Amino acid sequence: VDGGGVRAAIVTVGNELLFGETVDTNAAWIGRELVQRGIPVVRRYTVGDVDEDIAEAVDLARGAAELVVVTGGLGPTPDDRTKPALAAHLGLPLIADATARRDVEARFRAAGMNGVPPLSSGQYEVPEGARVLRNPKGTAPGLLLESEGGWIAMFPGVPRELKAIFSLDFASALDELMGAATAIHHRVIHTTGIFETKLAEALEPVIGALPAAVRGGVDLAYLPDLLGVDLRLSIRGSSAKEADDRFDAWSEGVAEVLDPWRFDAPSGDLAEAVVLELRRHGAKLAVAESCTGGWVGTRITAVPGSSEVFQGGIIAYANEAKVRFVGVSSEALERDGAVSERVAIELAKGVAERFGTEAGIGVTGVAGPGGGSDEKPVGTVWIGVCLDGETRAFLHRYPGDRGDVRARAAQTALALLYRRLRGRPQD
Amino acid sequence: VDGGGVRAAIVTVGNELLFGETVDTNAAWIGRELVQRGIPVVRRYTVGDVDEDIAEAVDLARGAAELVVVTGGLGPTPDDRTKPALAAHLGLPLIADATARRDVEARFRAAGMNGVPPLSSGQYEVPEGARVLRNPKGTAPGLLLESEGGWIAMFPGVPRELKAIFSLDFASALDELMGAATAIHHRVIHTTGIFETKLAEALEPVIGALPAAVRGGVDLAYLPDLLGVDLRLSIRGSSAKEADDRFDAWSEGVAEVLDPWRFDAPSGDLAEAVVLELRRHGAKLAVAESCTGGWVGTRITAVPGSSEVFQGGIIAYANEAKVRFVGVSSEALERDGAVSERVAIELAKGVAERFGTEAGIGVTGVAGPGGGSDEKPVGTVWIGVCLDGETRAFLHRYPGDRGDVRARAAQTALALLYRRLRGRPQD
Repeated sequence: VDGGGVRAAIVTVGNELLFGETVDTNAAWIGRELVQRGIPVVRRYTVGDVDEDIAEAVDLARGAAELVVVTGGLGPTPDDRTKPALAAHLGLPLIADATARRDVEARFRAAGMNGVPPLSSGQYEVPEGARVLRNPKGTAPGLLLESEGGWIAMFPGVPRELKAIFSLDFASALDELMGAATAIHHRVIHTTGIFETKLAEALEPVIGALPAAVRGGVDLAYLPDLLGVDLRLSIRGSSAKEADDRFDAWSEGVAEVLDPWRFDAPSGDLAEAVVLELRRHGAKLAVAESCTGGWVGTRITAVPGSSEVFQGGIIAYANEAKVRFVGVSSEALERDGAVSERVAIELAKGVAERFGTEAGIGVTGVAGPGGGSDEKPVGTVWIGVCLDGETRAFLHRYPGDRGDVRARAAQTALALLYRRLRGRPQD
Repeated sequence: VDGGGVRAAIVTVGNELLFGETVDTNAAWIGRELVQRGIPVVRRYTVGDVDEDIAEAVDLARGAAELVVVTGGLGPTPDDRTKPALAAHLGLPLIADATARRDVEARFRAAGMNGVPPLSSGQYEVPEGARVLRNPKGTAPGLLLESEGGWIAMFPGVPRELKAIFSLDFASALDELMGAATAIHHRVIHTTGIFETKLAEALEPVIGALPAAVRGGVDLAYLPDLLGVDLRLSIRGSSAKEADDRFDAWSEGVAEVLDPWRFDAPSGDLAEAVVLELRRHGAKLAVAESCTGGWVGTRITAVPGSSEVFQGGIIAYANEAKVRFVGVSSEALERDGAVSERVAIELAKGVAERFGTEAGIGVTGVAGPGGGSDEKPVGTVWIGVCLDGETRAFLHRYPGDRGDVRARAAQTALALLYRRLRGRPQD
């Protein structure tokens, strides 16, 4: 890694980290973000909520790196020590910041409270000279200080606040600090439904056979999670236009292997890709969910504007609800069981008919921990997809616990509908 | 902090930790194990696979604590630097250990290999004077060194090997080092529906007024997230029975302030608390969700065994679905609008009637980013709760983005039903 000479050290603050009550995912997340930007992380320190320990760690970090990133201890309660400890250590008075104050006041107003509670008024005080990094998810702003030719950035320890501040204000501040020279361009390609190793085995020979002009200089990282594998392409040291052309050529070169699994959504969320495809197709959707209990509906309605294409659905958890509200036949339930091809098809078809939609999804499975059998072990899920009057169901077996099985089933249901809408093979 | 005088510092080694490719779960696991044994962890350092950095971190750790636990970098490949780096730094020659050699040879034999591959022969070399901690899961033994009146323990970074060595040989070595261990006892109390600052403002004076015998020695930490605030109580240096009694007395002393917001669930999940209360009450539940799109159902069905108390529900996203499938009156929709007290009540009542359940939840709101007005800005949510034929609705205004509003609305819906089931005031 080469960040134009800038190295980073991370300081995470909190007794809960030292005592192992909380796993330090922030440190890993920050590490990835910095390394992606070409800034190597050379040290990490974790200390408790103790002023001298925080100051000591920051001094050690400043000795090892130009950029020090501190998280945790910025909240309003007495055990949050980072801001006062560092302000005192650096000899900077804490002064009220007008922007931060406005943001904090607005948050409490939005929550229906009149004025800021006394304990929270410290939230808009910042060390003199610090740049305020806005926090769209909470009351503790991030802070960026220049000190002795280096920088100290402070973030709250709540992961979603840290991430929001990082994206909103800190990422651009970093670009300023580093200059544009070392710019790295990225493109992320989203896939779902194929394991990382399988994808790599299929992809690597094809990449190897690409012309050098297409392949060379494009770095590829596999970023797997429970729901799929993102491919991150990186190119450094070229213009944005050049990088875009290279990414296009690369994607085209591997399209045959990648496209069956690929989906396109600005947010990286498959549900958004489904909403966009439904809109393009002029189709509306309804869902009937048993083992996922509403998760497919939750995913779809998380997408802003989904009301244009989503009518609603039935959480058909009890068998009685499957029969009464979706029209599943009692005979299918008795003969084939609730977790069966036939019930999945009747759920998808029935809910589309009742809601008067072109598209329907039906999900029924054994999420565990109980309810499994030799024939239908925990992780067995049937998913029905109906579009324009034609319905098919697909059998999946997922590893993992109840939460994993349900999350994967909801993702697969969306993926099956997406592929159907794109006219691709579904399995 | 008092752990019989022994404090610990943890050093984790590996570029993959600094770069965030691996989340440092070892550090958290070791922290919990040590704290449970009454040994406070006072520092944590993470460095890359670089001899000088490892030596520097261990020196810092020795300066802060009597026991230094190092993980990572004990494997057989050239980037595993911990053992040679520390042996050189402490001036100890590496010599072959007979026991370690026998174990390593046995492992390769068991794997069907004749003799130890050259790269792995270093695995049975140990710094002179080190005690070998057997590794039942791999070839790298753990090591325990006494140095300058303190101890340095080294473990491989593979979590299952670390854990196996810890349980097999290190736990008893620790007991020897410490004499009788003084454990720390914890209790976590879950709350929802009140901000951290509000809770602290209400709680702190009451805690201050508790008798010293109840208050003293109980440490309190506030652990907030999007859905609520956990309170973690800690007591050091007493028996489990004594600690339990102290926790009980403390909880009783602050019950008046805490109980309106408190919920009890082994998993810490409010949905589990609701499922337990429904079971106790002999009631079944159905839900009708508009802006949450199925999230309440998803939360409830995430609890194993929820089928006993949950029948299902309607995702009543489009207004047409509210009318047709839940029986909301068109007149209410027209006159009061979809986000209104009346529609929330009709949703909760209607879904309970149609599903034949004692309990019903109805959620309707403006999740954003669009759809807000002066009268009903983004974040406005009406939640109806029906139990045993009596229905009430509650107005909430949430800050945050679409995801935040929906998550909080689902949480509040569960909290309102929980309080109703417990016979507590709901607002």
